[in-house]
Amino acid sequence: MEQGSQWEKAYTHGGDVYRNEKIRMDFSININPLGMPDFIKQAAMDGVEESARYPDSRCRRLRRLAAGFYGVQEETLVFGNGAAELIFGIVRAVSPRRAVLTAPSFTEYEAALSSVGAEVLFFPLKEEEDFSLPADRYLDFLKSARPDMIFLCNPANPTGRLTPGEEIRRILEFCTVQGILAVVDECFLDLAEEDERDSVLDLVRAGEKKVFLLKAFTKSFAMAGLRLGYGFLADGELRLKMQSQSQPWNVSIPAQEAGCAAFGAEREPYLREARRLIGQEREYLREGLQRLGFYVFPSEANFLLFKRTDRGDGGELYESLLSRGILIRRCGDYQGLSGDHYRICVKKREENRAFLENLGEIYKKR
Amino acid sequence: MEQGSQWEKAYTHGGDVYRNEKIRMDFSININPLGMPDFIKQAAMDGVEESARYPDSRCRRLRRLAAGFYGVQEETLVFGNGAAELIFGIVRAVSPRRAVLTAPSFTEYEAALSSVGAEVLFFPLKEEEDFSLPADRYLDFLKSARPDMIFLCNPANPTGRLTPGEEIRRILEFCTVQGILAVVDECFLDLAEEDERDSVLDLVRAGEKKVFLLKAFTKSFAMAGLRLGYGFLADGELRLKMQSQSQPWNVSIPAQEAGCAAFGAEREPYLREARRLIGQEREYLREGLQRLGFYVFPSEANFLLFKRTDRGDGGELYESLLSRGILIRRCGDYQGLSGDHYRICVKKREENRAFLENLGEIYKKR
Repeated sequence: MEQGSQWEKAYTHGGDVYRNEKIRMDFSININPLGMPDFIKQAAMDGVEESARYPDSRCRRLRRLAAGFYGVQEETLVFGNGAAELIFGIVRAVSPRRAVLTAPSFTEYEAALSSVGAEVLFFPLKEEEDFSLPADRYLDFLKSARPDMIFLCNPANPTGRLTPGEEIRRILEFCTVQGILAVVDECFLDLAEEDERDSVLDLVRAGEKKVFLLKAFTKSFAMAGLRLGYGFLADGELRLKMQSQSQPWNVSIPAQEAGCAAFGAEREPYLREARRLIGQEREYLREGLQRLGFYVFPSEANFLLFKRTDRGDGGELYESLLSRGILIRRCGDYQGLSGDHYRICVKKREENRAFLENLGEIYKKR
Repeated sequence: MEQGSQWEKAYTHGGDVYRNEKIRMDFSININPLGMPDFIKQAAMDGVEESARYPDSRCRRLRRLAAGFYGVQEETLVFGNGAAELIFGIVRAVSPRRAVLTAPSFTEYEAALSSVGAEVLFFPLKEEEDFSLPADRYLDFLKSARPDMIFLCNPANPTGRLTPGEEIRRILEFCTVQGILAVVDECFLDLAEEDERDSVLDLVRAGEKKVFLLKAFTKSFAMAGLRLGYGFLADGELRLKMQSQSQPWNVSIPAQEAGCAAFGAEREPYLREARRLIGQEREYLREGLQRLGFYVFPSEANFLLFKRTDRGDGGELYESLLSRGILIRRCGDYQGLSGDHYRICVKKREENRAFLENLGEIYKKR
């Protein structure tokens, strides 16, 4: 596996093109295949021009636009230096004794929980159920685990599974009754769905205090390098606690400007085209992978989890593709997955075709 | 005083041009009067172009350049989303029971310490001594206070006083013996001094573990909106702790690129010119203020602390200037200062002249 030198924590995420300099194609990060749109880029550039001064510590303009767009109170919103900062921020503010994560799930949830000394219990999603989230069994698990905090990602990373909104709501009702803070991470939902059916935004809008809804611009607008995430939290006391544990100027001016542009008129046409492309190319990749004999897990997201079925692979495929300049996400570091699992994002046709061709050549050789 | 609405923490820092939209001149933030140089701006723009991907979580290129420039081991460096993030980060990692701050000092030190429940004791700098730091008396204070952590800013904000390097070193020797972690904030030193005489970089270079040396690009290169600070810490265990309590991608790509450019060939001519201008204009402002009857405290930094001498002012001057579109820093929120104290940064001649003219008009009217 990837090894950090002694003085640094091991880095296991996708997108590490900095250590792998000969990467021609990066399939390891789940960003919008259309790339950063010009209206975002231009806004960020304008932000650079303004950056001799400090950022607005309250993100006032961005806050106004986002609140208007989502139909929530302005104060409900919290902004962060990427969604990842907000994950650490909410965990620190709640400071849970015990938390429940699904296995697998995004590894920064566990990193944040461990950093405050929380006990982490894993609810195992079953591979034979394609890693779907069974609400009843999950609720039983919560009843006996008695956590203070849970994380749910919808659609889930790294599996791509979407849990229907009504199921998530059932779980959140239980959390409210039990006083469990539920973080619902919808960072990938903008690219998965056209309507709000599966979002829990309505609960936040209604003032539900035990939900922290997390969203990010990172994936939807392909601006991971600018760092901007946001969350919805109706609990004012907890919000103040998050704020008091952070510096005042955590969102840069280029990020704030890009965020404002993301709520403009160009938003919907861009996202609509992205969803169309993702839907089409996900099926193209799925078919190609299946033709080569891989098992591909169902996904409603802009990425696919797959696995060799003939024999264990143990990371071989990662190395073979890397030697061809193609970076994919090996999943051995995820609780509940093994070195045989891989994740790729959905890109444009040309790259997807090149990916499948390379994969075909690797398998022919054997 | 400034009031936040119910759902937000009060904001008392300089630079709040977002709430004061009619500001023509902002004398409240202490940034380089030359403004963001083109080589920084261009690098940040190039960074925006690259920002569809995630930032390098290790800041490898920036780390290499900074380590080479300062002659330290690469691993000694920590990078943050502005120096303010590192202040919260080091406090969280140390998690002190008790800390000592000078009064006055930068208010985010106290904010960070309070956020982890540390007891904060203030060592009062004396106005009759022009807020200079008396090392012997300070050491006596530490002996009885027995803190785990101290903060020293050199030159100090908001006073502008520079403490000679040998005095700081004497204090740090005591800290090492007593196991006290000393944060030395040199965020304003690049603009104050041409040589390393007053820096404690040599101690970090020598592997001294009880020093966290903090620096920032914010002030030196007028890039506060991009967010990039850095620190030196020889204690590897504490560094890992800081790292484990933060997200991996805390420094944006535009900030990393700008930081790299700040170590290029254009660095020294730009800083040299800034220091020349600051030296000249600080004296111009000082003389002007004195002529109008203000007491101006000695300053070796790019800002000046001053006070009315004829009678208490209680913030009047702030409002008078604000109504003319000029923002200055009133200092009533600093422990050890009052509503009669004001801080201004040193700007270019044209703005400094306009500032003094406006001040003259206000005083003529009375």
